[in-house]
Amino acid sequence: MAIKANLSVLALSLLIIGISSCLPSIALQTSRLTSSKWTPRFLGGHSKPLIQNRQQQPHYQYETRYFSQRLDHFSFSDLPSFPQRYLISTEHWVGAQRLGPIFFYCGNEGDIEWFAANTGFVWEIAPRFGAMVVFPEHRYYGQSMPYGSRDEAYKNATTLSYLTAEQALADFAVLLRELKRDFSAEASPVVLFGGSYGGMLASWMRLKYPHVAVGALASSAPILQFEDIVPPETFYDIVSGAFKRESASCFNTVKESWDVLISESLKNDGLLQLTKTFHLCRTLKRAEDLRDWLDSAYSYLAMVNYPYSSDFMMPLPGHPIREVCRKIDGCPQGTSILERIFEGVSVYYNYTGGVDCFQLDDDPHGMDGWNWQACTEMVMPMSSSWDASMFPTYNYNHSSFQEECWKEFKVKPRSGWITTEFGGHDIKTALKKFGSNIIFSNGLLDPWSGGSVLQNISETIVALVTEEGAHHIDLRASSSEDPDWLLEQRATEIKLIKGWISDYYQEKKAIIDM
Amino acid sequence: MAIKANLSVLALSLLIIGISSCLPSIALQTSRLTSSKWTPRFLGGHSKPLIQNRQQQPHYQYETRYFSQRLDHFSFSDLPSFPQRYLISTEHWVGAQRLGPIFFYCGNEGDIEWFAANTGFVWEIAPRFGAMVVFPEHRYYGQSMPYGSRDEAYKNATTLSYLTAEQALADFAVLLRELKRDFSAEASPVVLFGGSYGGMLASWMRLKYPHVAVGALASSAPILQFEDIVPPETFYDIVSGAFKRESASCFNTVKESWDVLISESLKNDGLLQLTKTFHLCRTLKRAEDLRDWLDSAYSYLAMVNYPYSSDFMMPLPGHPIREVCRKIDGCPQGTSILERIFEGVSVYYNYTGGVDCFQLDDDPHGMDGWNWQACTEMVMPMSSSWDASMFPTYNYNHSSFQEECWKEFKVKPRSGWITTEFGGHDIKTALKKFGSNIIFSNGLLDPWSGGSVLQNISETIVALVTEEGAHHIDLRASSSEDPDWLLEQRATEIKLIKGWISDYYQEKKAIIDM
Repeated sequence: MAIKANLSVLALSLLIIGISSCLPSIALQTSRLTSSKWTPRFLGGHSKPLIQNRQQQPHYQYETRYFSQRLDHFSFSDLPSFPQRYLISTEHWVGAQRLGPIFFYCGNEGDIEWFAANTGFVWEIAPRFGAMVVFPEHRYYGQSMPYGSRDEAYKNATTLSYLTAEQALADFAVLLRELKRDFSAEASPVVLFGGSYGGMLASWMRLKYPHVAVGALASSAPILQFEDIVPPETFYDIVSGAFKRESASCFNTVKESWDVLISESLKNDGLLQLTKTFHLCRTLKRAEDLRDWLDSAYSYLAMVNYPYSSDFMMPLPGHPIREVCRKIDGCPQGTSILERIFEGVSVYYNYTGGVDCFQLDDDPHGMDGWNWQACTEMVMPMSSSWDASMFPTYNYNHSSFQEECWKEFKVKPRSGWITTEFGGHDIKTALKKFGSNIIFSNGLLDPWSGGSVLQNISETIVALVTEEGAHHIDLRASSSEDPDWLLEQRATEIKLIKGWISDYYQEKKAIIDM
Repeated sequence: MAIKANLSVLALSLLIIGISSCLPSIALQTSRLTSSKWTPRFLGGHSKPLIQNRQQQPHYQYETRYFSQRLDHFSFSDLPSFPQRYLISTEHWVGAQRLGPIFFYCGNEGDIEWFAANTGFVWEIAPRFGAMVVFPEHRYYGQSMPYGSRDEAYKNATTLSYLTAEQALADFAVLLRELKRDFSAEASPVVLFGGSYGGMLASWMRLKYPHVAVGALASSAPILQFEDIVPPETFYDIVSGAFKRESASCFNTVKESWDVLISESLKNDGLLQLTKTFHLCRTLKRAEDLRDWLDSAYSYLAMVNYPYSSDFMMPLPGHPIREVCRKIDGCPQGTSILERIFEGVSVYYNYTGGVDCFQLDDDPHGMDGWNWQACTEMVMPMSSSWDASMFPTYNYNHSSFQEECWKEFKVKPRSGWITTEFGGHDIKTALKKFGSNIIFSNGLLDPWSGGSVLQNISETIVALVTEEGAHHIDLRASSSEDPDWLLEQRATEIKLIKGWISDYYQEKKAIIDM
């Protein structure tokens, strides 16, 4: 699934906040820069590359179907229904009579075909389980648009107001019941899968709809990244730690670069000079744009810091942060800090060497679904600490965030809603004797792991943690380069899922025998 | 809680359905009558008697407060908020520092003051737990009206569209979080209580919001009275059984009376004669109105078939069905069937003997909240069997039901929604290894017990069943007439609730000690 860290519309505008009038003008300028922070996101707004890259992805066989969904499951308002797209394969399904399982991927914030192509694990294990495979698309993404078109669906806060996680979960529940009825498979066990936001949905779905699914594999699902559950610095501290563990000097170079970038930008022709240093296609207008472009690269690198070469949206070598640091550290003595930084991020933005000049962002103000979700219920506070982080210092400020969301969407974020609806605080007490059959899988290199469940909650709500894993690597297709720990992780997941299904069959049998 | 079986607007109009043109006219007339059936309900639409009777109820001390609630928790539509009323007492609360529990009654379809007055159990046990007591009102009932007034809230399907169980549960969750914050009581355990529809809400709340409450006592909560989970004849079969166990001849008299009633009504001046026989204040216009009036009395009698005299909305003797049958059976030989019936129902409608003539219904077409809920998500199919039931035979017909709801509210019932959202089918498989700390308490005399959970699901999701109990008698205030089985039932409930709370404290302590 994943996952392009991208410039966030919201954070760009936080720049104006927090100006201290006591500071002299240059310091003030620096303060203005460092007090800004974009909100990291799971998935980029760049939908074009997603589509273009599809040909390179493994191709799985499925049918594409559409299901008419209620726009609002929780009221009886008279609203138009919308077609939810889903991909389905019954190729390996052993059928309803043998209670063949249904593997159901909780579609997240993007085109479902792309998720299907990038979730090889589900396709690969389906045959051994005799399972049907279903990939439903999340409402307001891909082709699953209310109001007839993306333009209409994204028109304003009123049309967007049904883009929520709870509605998406209800879509899944309704679709599953309907599918089961169609296949006379009411008694077939459903196993949920999901990565990133999709992993959050999978775990929440198991918690809220235990009668619909017997278990969930929630990979890299930061369900604790809300309110004050984890420190807001967690994300950037982990990104920074991933650089520090490769090289302290690399970490320091990045950390020092921000002030240098500002000083340079304030010189005569400073922006022009930066444009040249970073080979930008168009003259830089604000230092902040460059800052965010760099910031984005580092965060994304941490997410896809896989042990083998990969090609999500950017072709990258294995251990890409190691490679970036090698470049930064390896420049000849006398190379300036900003030139080193350019060499480093070129690994991310130009690994194949085919780029002549860089576009900072193709559509930084493009209104997209995840921005709406982040401005409504998916409020994940993020700060950057002074000491452990290599990023500009920033303290999350909820009022500023609210203002930006109001400006952007005319909507008020409900920052306490997700934890009210789904919990999160003191999760161990809440779920130790409640619920079952959830795997929270995480790799500690992934910055989202900091907001995820990293300890077993009970015997059946378990955490699978890999030290060397990054963002939901376990859900990807197997490869000859898979390290042993990844093979073991997937084997454990298969074993646990088998256990859920066999428990379910036993329970069913006990009731029939009674 | 309870519980006046009342004429339902919806069913009255089912009369026009199912006419077979092959039948001769008299048979057809009978068929028209017997094919009709009103939907039994938990609580009458007669709100006036409820209020009048309040002085006679035990009076508990509480403050009345209001909390501003979102009208729609599950979308970001820009809707007006509404004031939710809640009653609160901290008199016996041991405070936040000692993690004093919060007892939270899930308000159901009526004025919350009435529920508070009729839920003595919660008030009586609070002191021994050092618990705070909260009684929140259900949206669209009592004083908790959206859109400023009852008239505006009940104006049409659009304004009513947020009257759903899921929204009510979210109200409770949001209110609880806010209360906990106000009292710095985030770590206080919450125990949910509820009877009838309120019991359904309590059990669903524990299942959907385990992070908000540690357990639920769901008394007489027919969460299985949906779709095809239990046979649709269950309700009327239980009512009929309660008569049959008192006297087979009483059962037979009632069973025979319907045809007699029709024959009489078809005679010249038949309706006038019936008016006299039944001492009606106004001349009977349609035999069906009388039929429904009788039907309603029998069902309500079964619900409040308590072993001691009670005074919900009607003053009644203990074992009221026994008394009714004594009257029906005890008439002098030669008394007509309808005269016997009149003697019988007079126990229900006129036990104190103060009524000169009877009003069949004060407002049979009054649009009320429960009718809306029954026409939207609370679709409970009810039939009356030919053999085990003493009521006119009727087979539930969903199309007719839909038509009536459309006529009444311009809304389409979603009959499969409750089981999609909350489960119900094969509940044992779904919850045996999921969830904990729910008591489903039921008395087998209560016709709603047929749609409730009557067997333990797991070690901690348990059924407490009493043979002689009726509709949520356990939630009522203790009385010197309480039979031993009721004392035992309440003692078990207290023991289980203590266990939930002490488990919670241990869990908390374990985490703090870690």
